[in-house]
Amino acid sequence: MPKTENFQWYVEQVADGELHSHALTRTLAQGTSAYQTYAIVESPLFGKMLVLDGDTQSASLDEHIYHESLVHPACAHVDQPASALVLGGGEGATVRELLRVPTMQRVVMVDIDGEVVAACRTHMPEWGAGAFEDPRVALIVGDAKAFVEGSHEKFDVIISDLTEPLADSPSYGLHTAGFYGRTRELLSDGGAYAIQTSMAGPHNFQLHAQMISTLRAAWPAVAPYTAYIPAFDTEWGFALCATALDARGAAAIARADAHARACGGLRHYDGQSHARAFNVPRYLRDAYTRETRVFK
Amino acid sequence: MPKTENFQWYVEQVADGELHSHALTRTLAQGTSAYQTYAIVESPLFGKMLVLDGDTQSASLDEHIYHESLVHPACAHVDQPASALVLGGGEGATVRELLRVPTMQRVVMVDIDGEVVAACRTHMPEWGAGAFEDPRVALIVGDAKAFVEGSHEKFDVIISDLTEPLADSPSYGLHTAGFYGRTRELLSDGGAYAIQTSMAGPHNFQLHAQMISTLRAAWPAVAPYTAYIPAFDTEWGFALCATALDARGAAAIARADAHARACGGLRHYDGQSHARAFNVPRYLRDAYTRETRVFK
Amino acid sequence: MPKTENFQWYVEQVADGELHSHALTRTLAQGTSAYQTYAIVESPLFGKMLVLDGDTQSASLDEHIYHESLVHPACAHVDQPASALVLGGGEGATVRELLRVPTMQRVVMVDIDGEVVAACRTHMPEWGAGAFEDPRVALIVGDAKAFVEGSHEKFDVIISDLTEPLADSPSYGLHTAGFYGRTRELLSDGGAYAIQTSMAGPHNFQLHAQMISTLRAAWPAVAPYTAYIPAFDTEWGFALCATALDARGAAAIARADAHARACGGLRHYDGQSHARAFNVPRYLRDAYTRETRVFK
Amino acid sequence: MPKTENFQWYVEQVADGELHSHALTRTLAQGTSAYQTYAIVESPLFGKMLVLDGDTQSASLDEHIYHESLVHPACAHVDQPASALVLGGGEGATVRELLRVPTMQRVVMVDIDGEVVAACRTHMPEWGAGAFEDPRVALIVGDAKAFVEGSHEKFDVIISDLTEPLADSPSYGLHTAGFYGRTRELLSDGGAYAIQTSMAGPHNFQLHAQMISTLRAAWPAVAPYTAYIPAFDTEWGFALCATALDARGAAAIARADAHARACGGLRHYDGQSHARAFNVPRYLRDAYTRETRVFK
Repeated sequence: MPKTENFQWYVEQVADGELHSHALTRTLAQGTSAYQTYAIVESPLFGKMLVLDGDTQSASLDEHIYHESLVHPACAHVDQPASALVLGGGEGATVRELLRVPTMQRVVMVDIDGEVVAACRTHMPEWGAGAFEDPRVALIVGDAKAFVEGSHEKFDVIISDLTEPLADSPSYGLHTAGFYGRTRELLSDGGAYAIQTSMAGPHNFQLHAQMISTLRAAWPAVAPYTAYIPAFDTEWGFALCATALDARGAAAIARADAHARACGGLRHYDGQSHARAFNVPRYLRDAYTRETRVFK
Repeated sequence: MPKTENFQWYVEQVADGELHSHALTRTLAQGTSAYQTYAIVESPLFGKMLVLDGDTQSASLDEHIYHESLVHPACAHVDQPASALVLGGGEGATVRELLRVPTMQRVVMVDIDGEVVAACRTHMPEWGAGAFEDPRVALIVGDAKAFVEGSHEKFDVIISDLTEPLADSPSYGLHTAGFYGRTRELLSDGGAYAIQTSMAGPHNFQLHAQMISTLRAAWPAVAPYTAYIPAFDTEWGFALCATALDARGAAAIARADAHARACGGLRHYDGQSHARAFNVPRYLRDAYTRETRVFK
Repeated sequence: MPKTENFQWYVEQVADGELHSHALTRTLAQGTSAYQTYAIVESPLFGKMLVLDGDTQSASLDEHIYHESLVHPACAHVDQPASALVLGGGEGATVRELLRVPTMQRVVMVDIDGEVVAACRTHMPEWGAGAFEDPRVALIVGDAKAFVEGSHEKFDVIISDLTEPLADSPSYGLHTAGFYGRTRELLSDGGAYAIQTSMAGPHNFQLHAQMISTLRAAWPAVAPYTAYIPAFDTEWGFALCATALDARGAAAIARADAHARACGGLRHYDGQSHARAFNVPRYLRDAYTRETRVFK
Repeated sequence: MPKTENFQWYVEQVADGELHSHALTRTLAQGTSAYQTYAIVESPLFGKMLVLDGDTQSASLDEHIYHESLVHPACAHVDQPASALVLGGGEGATVRELLRVPTMQRVVMVDIDGEVVAACRTHMPEWGAGAFEDPRVALIVGDAKAFVEGSHEKFDVIISDLTEPLADSPSYGLHTAGFYGRTRELLSDGGAYAIQTSMAGPHNFQLHAQMISTLRAAWPAVAPYTAYIPAFDTEWGFALCATALDARGAAAIARADAHARACGGLRHYDGQSHARAFNVPRYLRDAYTRETRVFK
């Protein structure tokens, strides 16, 4: 047989009839946990990639864009945040970003899949960067829904890094207006909540728009924002929720710059990246106007 | 043999070891002109796609984002633009956008590949939307370099929609500091120049950064900007060049909104999209600082 | 976008989880007839390929192996064959091979899909090589089942080049023991019948074995045989049926050699190829012993 | 991201512009030895597959066809073979087949890549089926060329299971007329030599034909033969070499049947499979006549 340089590939279906194939250099781990199939693979361009049920969750190349975008707008909004709750977030990078905030003293992370968390700690330790060993962090392997419904602790920042409410997903119940409202009750006065809100490209924003509509049923102020994440093959959606927001204003941009300087070590988030993210593309603004469905 | 639903695919190599495959429903045209191979194909998600030498040039799904981004920032910057020059732009959509500007009276387009222009007019007439039949338009099938070097006409807006200065490309000579400077001489006082400046994702911005560096050698003010174009599988780069610019300021955003209202029919460009585009991601700003090479 | 040499591909699913992808140089024709989707494409290795409903039907590279294998064993078995009936055979190459037989005076071909026959005549004329213009040939665009059930003409050779009895195929009714028996009634005394009998590789012979079992319910002598056809990605099955057969014996081999010499111009069939084909692999012989199901 | 069932694939380039992709269920081992990259992967259709430098070496589905074809014609030719030498043969299946021969008392195997041999023993133990633990077997991890040039031992059967003489292959020097001649000197009187001789399909037989030409420069009698191996995506070539041969004759076929009965447990080789294999396709016979180049 003639030689080829690459022979193992990870093929991701990014839409009907659209495939993205990554040549692989290594498979570091693979298995099936009680909740999902998982693999940690490596591509020359993306570096290590965590794949759950065939979908890329994060990649060395750009996980900092995803995780800084998810965490820092909420932290910048809050005055001296000291405590945080992370729902999901198995790789540990969401906690890593929270720990960069100088005032942060306690981070609770609740993820249901202990096997995936362990695989990430072993094979992708640079994601967590020691977060799981930090004394400020409490890792709870368990159901985020049960935790939120049963907890009485308040947090200054809450980050939802859960998979999306697809029809067949175990996360479906974690994206209703009711659950969003219950989560809000765990937030301190003056706190902020941020959530990843699925694909937000011109061709795949429908679920995102419905998530934004559902968030608006539970929060007085919802500011959607997006960032382009190559490993996801699309613009990705987020939302910042609080009692009141002026996310595109000059004050918010100045606060983002000050927050980024205070944290140190950020590679993506600052005032200008904040301005870019919250000035969302017009097709999204049009979609938010049209979309009235709420997940119940 | 067992049945499959799709069997013809367009496979684009978007980076070393990274492929994007599109299932196809139709091939509308294909051939080899004097300059390149071309095909017009159709995918369920992207609709019609123009493919030159194996690379997607534009697609029904999102060509409006690309062409509005390329054309309107320059037009919004200029006070009552009446004349425009387009270098390249075979599909006709760049001219289409220029003709939306109420004050526009003359558009000259110079594209070297008459066969591709003809194929686009026949098989993708919605791209040009009648532009080639408009009495304000002069189409010159010829060499953009020779035209720029030989012309004495002045234009209020110049748009460069040429392929990038890859080593083996016939466009190489169209991206030197010298040629950029010569192009600038064709611009009216108070005019603006915009150019597509290649891939601008976190993983593929190197050529873009060098193009920006080269533009800065020829222009007093260069404002890079980007937009996510799914058909290109990446954030895409552009640059607006003029005598002086404050592209991120409140006045520029207000001007963008006024311009969009005056044009009517735009689907992407307005003040907020302008703000998003010109607040470029941090990895680009870092790259512009580092990159000092100039194409000569 | 970086350049790639090939960008259009024909991807054939050759089994669950197994794909064969062919880079394409051209698409010569494509469409949807009343019966199926079809395309005539070209690959550097296989040359022109006829694809029906996503499955390769024949390719320039090796269609001579398929068509000589299908036609000549039956013709060699019959003493001075003068008339032949072809069921299916849209490309025209089955008729082409029959016309090589010096004693052949009349060939009737019945194919239901006139649009595909016409596309093959236009874009793959080398398949028929003038067969459709030969005065000895009668082409009937119509239903093979209706023809066989209604005809009273006798033929010295009958060739079945129909698609296989897959559950959802219009050919299903053409592969029952009853229809095989009715076809046999159209054969002259001393005549022979040959039929393509689907995939016959170590991994995909189940349908083939059931077709052989069904043929044995309708014929006193059935000799399965196979040939490796690269365009089909597998060993391919055929069967020769007659009143009596000793297909592996020295006399049959000598007759094959004499027939090949008399025809002239053959590239594949001769005594040694005959011996190879009829000495079928052991996994098939084992399967024939086990398989007792008959299509009814 | 939408779900897909399979996401890891092994993509093998089987010719220029022709790819065969296998969905994978598992990667059992992968690494880079001193000589090559290797992986042991698993596909639903093919089961475990050993992949060296991107090329399939053998697969659960059909390795018995390859290894029985490689070993038994030589063993059947020799009267009561008691000793055998295997050059290459890392998986252990070649030795496994030799040990089936009732008269076999000593098998020496020389393979240069101890790391691959060890990976096969650990992850594909069913290939060797205990062969490496059999007291009759001596495994030498070392250079086949040095062994052959330095040895004075004689063997009744010699099997060459080495990779082909591609220009950049370390096996190149193992396929010259000179080395074939030196190997012959290690054979007992009345012994037989068999060698795998690369791809032998209608589209890829050129190297095979040149190997046959080279063998004919070193041996008085060379009988090429082939078998279809789905995991190799092609008919595969072999050659049986001895002082004198009539491989297609009735006596050889009867000897094959007797040998198969004596061995017991064979799944592929018997008289009829022998007849099929040695009646090679006509395109090969034509190629042998034309090809006169000899590897030197």
